[in-house]
Amino acid sequence: MKDQTDIPALMAEIGARAKAAAAELAHASAERKHAALIAAADAVWTRRDEIISANAKDMEFGRQKGLTDAMMDRLRLDEGRIQGIVDGLRTVAEQKDPVGDTIAEWDMPSGLRIRRVRTPLGVVGVIYESRPNVTADAGALCLKAGNAVILRGGSESFHSSAAIHACLVEGLKAANLPEDAVQRVPTRDRAAVSEMLQMTGTIDVIVPRGGKGLVGLVQREARVPVFAHLEGICHVYVDKSADPDKARAVVLNAKTRRTGICGSAECLLVHRDIAETLGQQIVDDLIAAGVEVRARGLKGSVEAADSDFGTEFLDMKIAAKVVDDIDEAIAHIREFGSSHTEAILTEDAEAVARFFERVDSAIVMHNASTQFADGGEFGMGAEIGIATGKMHARGPVGAEQLTSFKYLVVGDGTLRP
Amino acid sequence: MKDQTDIPALMAEIGARAKAAAAELAHASAERKHAALIAAADAVWTRRDEIISANAKDMEFGRQKGLTDAMMDRLRLDEGRIQGIVDGLRTVAEQKDPVGDTIAEWDMPSGLRIRRVRTPLGVVGVIYESRPNVTADAGALCLKAGNAVILRGGSESFHSSAAIHACLVEGLKAANLPEDAVQRVPTRDRAAVSEMLQMTGTIDVIVPRGGKGLVGLVQREARVPVFAHLEGICHVYVDKSADPDKARAVVLNAKTRRTGICGSAECLLVHRDIAETLGQQIVDDLIAAGVEVRARGLKGSVEAADSDFGTEFLDMKIAAKVVDDIDEAIAHIREFGSSHTEAILTEDAEAVARFFERVDSAIVMHNASTQFADGGEFGMGAEIGIATGKMHARGPVGAEQLTSFKYLVVGDGTLRP
Repeated sequence: MKDQTDIPALMAEIGARAKAAAAELAHASAERKHAALIAAADAVWTRRDEIISANAKDMEFGRQKGLTDAMMDRLRLDEGRIQGIVDGLRTVAEQKDPVGDTIAEWDMPSGLRIRRVRTPLGVVGVIYESRPNVTADAGALCLKAGNAVILRGGSESFHSSAAIHACLVEGLKAANLPEDAVQRVPTRDRAAVSEMLQMTGTIDVIVPRGGKGLVGLVQREARVPVFAHLEGICHVYVDKSADPDKARAVVLNAKTRRTGICGSAECLLVHRDIAETLGQQIVDDLIAAGVEVRARGLKGSVEAADSDFGTEFLDMKIAAKVVDDIDEAIAHIREFGSSHTEAILTEDAEAVARFFERVDSAIVMHNASTQFADGGEFGMGAEIGIATGKMHARGPVGAEQLTSFKYLVVGDGTLRP
Repeated sequence: MKDQTDIPALMAEIGARAKAAAAELAHASAERKHAALIAAADAVWTRRDEIISANAKDMEFGRQKGLTDAMMDRLRLDEGRIQGIVDGLRTVAEQKDPVGDTIAEWDMPSGLRIRRVRTPLGVVGVIYESRPNVTADAGALCLKAGNAVILRGGSESFHSSAAIHACLVEGLKAANLPEDAVQRVPTRDRAAVSEMLQMTGTIDVIVPRGGKGLVGLVQREARVPVFAHLEGICHVYVDKSADPDKARAVVLNAKTRRTGICGSAECLLVHRDIAETLGQQIVDDLIAAGVEVRARGLKGSVEAADSDFGTEFLDMKIAAKVVDDIDEAIAHIREFGSSHTEAILTEDAEAVARFFERVDSAIVMHNASTQFADGGEFGMGAEIGIATGKMHARGPVGAEQLTSFKYLVVGDGTLRP
């Protein structure tokens, strides 16, 4: 989609404004940021009819464009979902302000006292698809961490995002913070996305939220650092020492609670010693729940193909395989996983220790459902995304991980010999 | 410089070996890594004559190539400097092992216990110029943090680096760790550098060590994340409430202790109220010490040109300027600084607080010499470099900042509602 605007000029201006706002925000008080978020939450609730009308335009556009039911569902806003947005803003507002926090502090023999304190990252770019609530979540988390943000929502949620964005700006104004702290790219032109990915002088990090197509594009093309996960190919390994009741319940929850989220289990690994007993029971449970089990070494719905391992189904489907021991499970995860979330189900502490030590995914779980892979469930209030890279942020990314740090060093006329 | 080797194939092989070694190293015990470093230190001392002979070849090559005296000095190894390398290896060995450290730990209402623990980053690439000791420092820090490292030393230090590298490998063997944990690119062909910068699938981070030419090239060309600083344009601001004795001593130390290091002061900012008294005294001190002061608003050696501000002299030269107040000093630093290290000299706590809050450099100091900007002086044992970016690492980069983290989550059959 193209329009008449000079995109590079537009983005350069947005970038310059974001940088100026970031410099101011960096030393804005915690109270003022809190006030802005509360005022934004109030504005979203007060202006809910306006937001729902804007959303109706997007829904109409979506219908004409022939969006899938799943996409239409992600796009849709009603009073309940707007209440969710309001709650999200309030939750982030009440979180601890990370800026200025002392991370570490120590004295040196030279007489220097060194303190490492959190600072904002600077400017965050968020590129997302149809969910309009990302506008509020991402805007709120960036603001909390003292960062300016440039939001580039999907063309499907254009009007809804604009209406929510207006409420965030209202919050900023109410708290006397720079309006440019939360900017929205006011065009559907895709050239704006390409431009953002190259803005190394302005944007400190890009967070893409959406399907594999979008995330892959951003990861390939961005010159700016990226916090993202391409896929969530989450594994659950049922050890020979698993508790049968816990294991059956956890696997069912990990696969079926919601199949469309990145923390949904996509592959079941079962220890050979319990494959015919507990393992088969779990597979039967899954089939009974309506899951298509693509199995190898187990009686499933169908026989697994090689390509089923390492596939993110995001559906009522799961790959399943018998492994000889925990090391084969770990090796399988290393080969086919996406470094997102993996779980071991066992009562054997040694097996847990080995799995925790050797599986290098962002989140490694014991006797818990992979569906807990979520910033809210980690106590972060919200998340701007989940990262599977190893640089800077990893796992659910909340306000704290949207910060950097600096060293404050105090001497008393201290000279280096 | 070119040779006959197929560089992409060579680097792909080195990369694959590094990845395999990293997977093993990630769960190597602290004891074993310690043993490898101690054995490497012993080997460097035992084989010092061999290293000095290798260095003689490099010195001969350097003379033929017409290296400057400063470069020749950086290249030269003698028994004293080898003792320094040995001490460095031992210091890193005795540092706390960061891998597995719990960074944070908390419980959630769901019943989950969440722990954030340090993990190695993976594979580090180090690209450096003439100093052969970087081979030992970088190799040791990477190993300490459980990372595999690919070392690409300058062609000037080719033989010296090879000899030191052999000692590191001896240490790895003695501790029964994979030899490929510390690899050296065995060619002077510059194509190897270009190749490293693109190895996103293998190398997790690149650390360039050297002049502005090398660092700029790496920052421009790398697709792999980079920890670096392009320049150290460090400022010292003498506030109106500075203690005269401390201020005079600190400025002199900050400029003249060593002029060729990145923490050397390059610009003096003086508050208008004390410009003619303490300010002029400091300028006179500097001139008396042989420093060329390029001054504006003060009587210096010469009048400052616009281009003197924001210049990294790395020499007995300094720019100096009178500012109206602390805010002008902060604005000057924001415009001309390189986010490396800045100091305020004052006895006024409010001025310190303002400077600490508003100057966003990696290191911000009060009443201390900027020459303290160094990993050793920060208690890190050594440093692989100093970073001025805001992603992941910042300031002196020691073993701890060469790590990532993961979340370990413990439940008891815990399901997400």
